[in-house]
Amino acid sequence: MVQLTVCLDSGGEKPLYQQLYESLVSQIRSGALKAGDRLPGKRALAGQLAVAVNTVDTAYQMLAAEGYLEARPRSGFFVLESGGFPAVEAPAFPHRPAADAPQEQEDEEEPCQRFDLSTGGVDTALFPFRTWGRIQRDLLYGEPELLRHGHRQGDENLRRELAEYLRAYRGVDCGVEQIVVGAGVEYLLGLVARLLGPVTAAVENPGYDRSRMILENSGVRCRCVSIDEGGLSAEGLEASGADLCYVTPSHHFPTAVTMPVSRRAQLLRWARQRPGRYILEDDYDAEFRFDTRPLPSLQGMGGRWGPVIYLCTFSKSLAPSIRIACMVLPMGLLGQYQAVFGSYANTVSRFEQQTLCRFLSQGHFTRHLSRMRSVYRGRMTALAEALEGAFGRENIVLQGRHTGLHLLLTLKNGPGEENMVRAARQAGVALRGLSQYYMEGRETCPENTVVLGYASLRDEEIPALAEALQRAWT
Amino acid sequence: MVQLTVCLDSGGEKPLYQQLYESLVSQIRSGALKAGDRLPGKRALAGQLAVAVNTVDTAYQMLAAEGYLEARPRSGFFVLESGGFPAVEAPAFPHRPAADAPQEQEDEEEPCQRFDLSTGGVDTALFPFRTWGRIQRDLLYGEPELLRHGHRQGDENLRRELAEYLRAYRGVDCGVEQIVVGAGVEYLLGLVARLLGPVTAAVENPGYDRSRMILENSGVRCRCVSIDEGGLSAEGLEASGADLCYVTPSHHFPTAVTMPVSRRAQLLRWARQRPGRYILEDDYDAEFRFDTRPLPSLQGMGGRWGPVIYLCTFSKSLAPSIRIACMVLPMGLLGQYQAVFGSYANTVSRFEQQTLCRFLSQGHFTRHLSRMRSVYRGRMTALAEALEGAFGRENIVLQGRHTGLHLLLTLKNGPGEENMVRAARQAGVALRGLSQYYMEGRETCPENTVVLGYASLRDEEIPALAEALQRAWT
Repeated sequence: MVQLTVCLDSGGEKPLYQQLYESLVSQIRSGALKAGDRLPGKRALAGQLAVAVNTVDTAYQMLAAEGYLEARPRSGFFVLESGGFPAVEAPAFPHRPAADAPQEQEDEEEPCQRFDLSTGGVDTALFPFRTWGRIQRDLLYGEPELLRHGHRQGDENLRRELAEYLRAYRGVDCGVEQIVVGAGVEYLLGLVARLLGPVTAAVENPGYDRSRMILENSGVRCRCVSIDEGGLSAEGLEASGADLCYVTPSHHFPTAVTMPVSRRAQLLRWARQRPGRYILEDDYDAEFRFDTRPLPSLQGMGGRWGPVIYLCTFSKSLAPSIRIACMVLPMGLLGQYQAVFGSYANTVSRFEQQTLCRFLSQGHFTRHLSRMRSVYRGRMTALAEALEGAFGRENIVLQGRHTGLHLLLTLKNGPGEENMVRAARQAGVALRGLSQYYMEGRETCPENTVVLGYASLRDEEIPALAEALQRAWT
Repeated sequence: MVQLTVCLDSGGEKPLYQQLYESLVSQIRSGALKAGDRLPGKRALAGQLAVAVNTVDTAYQMLAAEGYLEARPRSGFFVLESGGFPAVEAPAFPHRPAADAPQEQEDEEEPCQRFDLSTGGVDTALFPFRTWGRIQRDLLYGEPELLRHGHRQGDENLRRELAEYLRAYRGVDCGVEQIVVGAGVEYLLGLVARLLGPVTAAVENPGYDRSRMILENSGVRCRCVSIDEGGLSAEGLEASGADLCYVTPSHHFPTAVTMPVSRRAQLLRWARQRPGRYILEDDYDAEFRFDTRPLPSLQGMGGRWGPVIYLCTFSKSLAPSIRIACMVLPMGLLGQYQAVFGSYANTVSRFEQQTLCRFLSQGHFTRHLSRMRSVYRGRMTALAEALEGAFGRENIVLQGRHTGLHLLLTLKNGPGEENMVRAARQAGVALRGLSQYYMEGRETCPENTVVLGYASLRDEEIPALAEALQRAWT
């Protein structure tokens, strides 16, 4: 394996992956890296450069797609001989044979597995087909004016329903004018990032790597702050030098910690210390709290003039393929938002906006949620009991029972997380180890712990699943 | 009116509007600008600073929303007294009375006018309600797997249909893997901008100001290049120092020029001169060519390994509120796209993707287009004849008859564009003058010329409209 000399400027205008990509291209072109050279592993290089693994992965994938590198399964990335280079200096746009085309990316889910414990899915059998379909039909035949452009932040009656729902169920304090409807949380995160400019953001570690990636793609520098028993550490936040703080206070992903009020107050105090500081609250699955009413949102504690930008999605409560999410902007950011994005057309089809609006206003949504909550609670309980039965209650620790839609399982004296994940896959169970959500400091990750998403599991599979895991791990 | 000293750095990391905003804030805080001072007009300041009017407008709107400035109708922007300032130094997030809330933005269209000749609309009465509704219902009841995540670039069968449609009707040369489906052209433009990084783009002048704004919001610096009888000037492009070129070659907006093949070849040669140069082809309404088949797209001339990023929308051919657009990436950008955005969820609901897919595959779309084309051709002809009848054929020049969905009208010896627009509005006709699409060099704009969008006009209104304009202008 070769030794790389790469110098990245984390304060620079270019994203880190781009800097790394360009540095490697120039080393390959100059001959410093030769055909057949094996590049360092992604984790190793990420550690050496103190960047996210994703940064290195992005640069490597770009180089592979462009023919500089070759990815060999289970061996890593190798420099290709120069004959393989695209003719970058004198591109004549030849019609290359289709075989050269980059492959379509594979989805990271593994649908071929027998049991799916990934965390992205939902139980689509619970979807309210009849009601949703009836509302859609009524709208299509009865409301032709929905073919015209609607309000750019989202149709006003929908935003009114959302404001009322968020107030009643999440303690969000906002007016209709603060709500922006958009085609998914990822889209809205990108807007926030561009609105706030090239700031530095603190992100949770372990945490939701995709949010970090989106922020970084949009020009936000991210610093990892570790999670303790109260969620994101306030001291860590202070020390991070960040002016934006991305958190999941209702139900931290993936450790399932709910942030206590004292910590929430610390976060709000941090934001108040300097103008221009904001907290980005991602309330991604707070609808599924099984024991008590969830804590009101951090946004509600801060108030409508406060520093919290609140995000919520209908991916989990309706379906991932219905692309509706919403964001609540602080009053203090509204002028800036309208100045920058005020003339962007809304990204959600008005028929789907209005279907959701009636689904909310006619009370279907709260009934649907309470039905889903009860199904998921039953499934979580059945899964927990089956696992305790299979392994013995004294041999495992289960965390995250109060809020959905995943559990953390720790196997006492287990064979190590990596072995657990591998053995589970061989037994037909798709799941991820907790350490995969650590963007740095993996050595501090609790041992023998895996993440079990149960939303798309079928109830009748649970006994066989528990047995398969027990056989795989003991 | 006060004299401003502002120094902007067009190569800087911060967008120009942000630099201008910050400069004005500091001048207000320092007392260099005093309460009651009137700021220069937007156009005057934009001319003085050599930036787009939109840049100045954005900064002014931000300052107004935050209470630094007050907008007085027909007089401009004035500095507010310091009592009106928000407490930026020590924000305590008080619950301010709702009366302080920034107003919801108004749509720029004027629905109260009797005749709507704006260019954003379509004739929604032509929408194929029955077919669209039947397909939607079939999918909702018959394809529950559509509730799950689909392919991140868009469902594969939809992309296959799009590739075939674009090949057959627009001469686009692409494989399924090059297509990205997204919730509107604005969203896709934002992705392109982030993909290419902080490049400099040449944009058409006159041209579509919103595209320029989106590019600038996403970190792309824009340089205006003037339009001649062949569209965007190749010499102007060369001189602009740009590495990205945004064009509407099929039907330039708003001058209606179709770019000839020789000019297209020049643009492709320009792109070939340097690696990393791209052309962004916005094929926003090429479906509505009335005389002959439209020229094949520039993308097709360049080929799938060529330098053209192709954008098209279904806003005009279906409805603005159905948010589906698509982009064809050059093969050479595919690896980079997948590395950066490959894991972003698609922004279009899968039910709408699949509805469009069946609408295309079952032949409804081409039938629908040919029906619309015939209605719009009839409307354009009726409008042209009514105008010639009202004004006398020798007194007006009409341009843009071959391609939809707007005409340019020049009134010989007219009272000046500004007077024409004002008189039309007083007579109940909403329209814009051609000079409003000039981002700079308005003095070169042809005189007495207005833009007439006829897509959302009703046929029976045409005689009264022509008469109203004739009375207003003579």
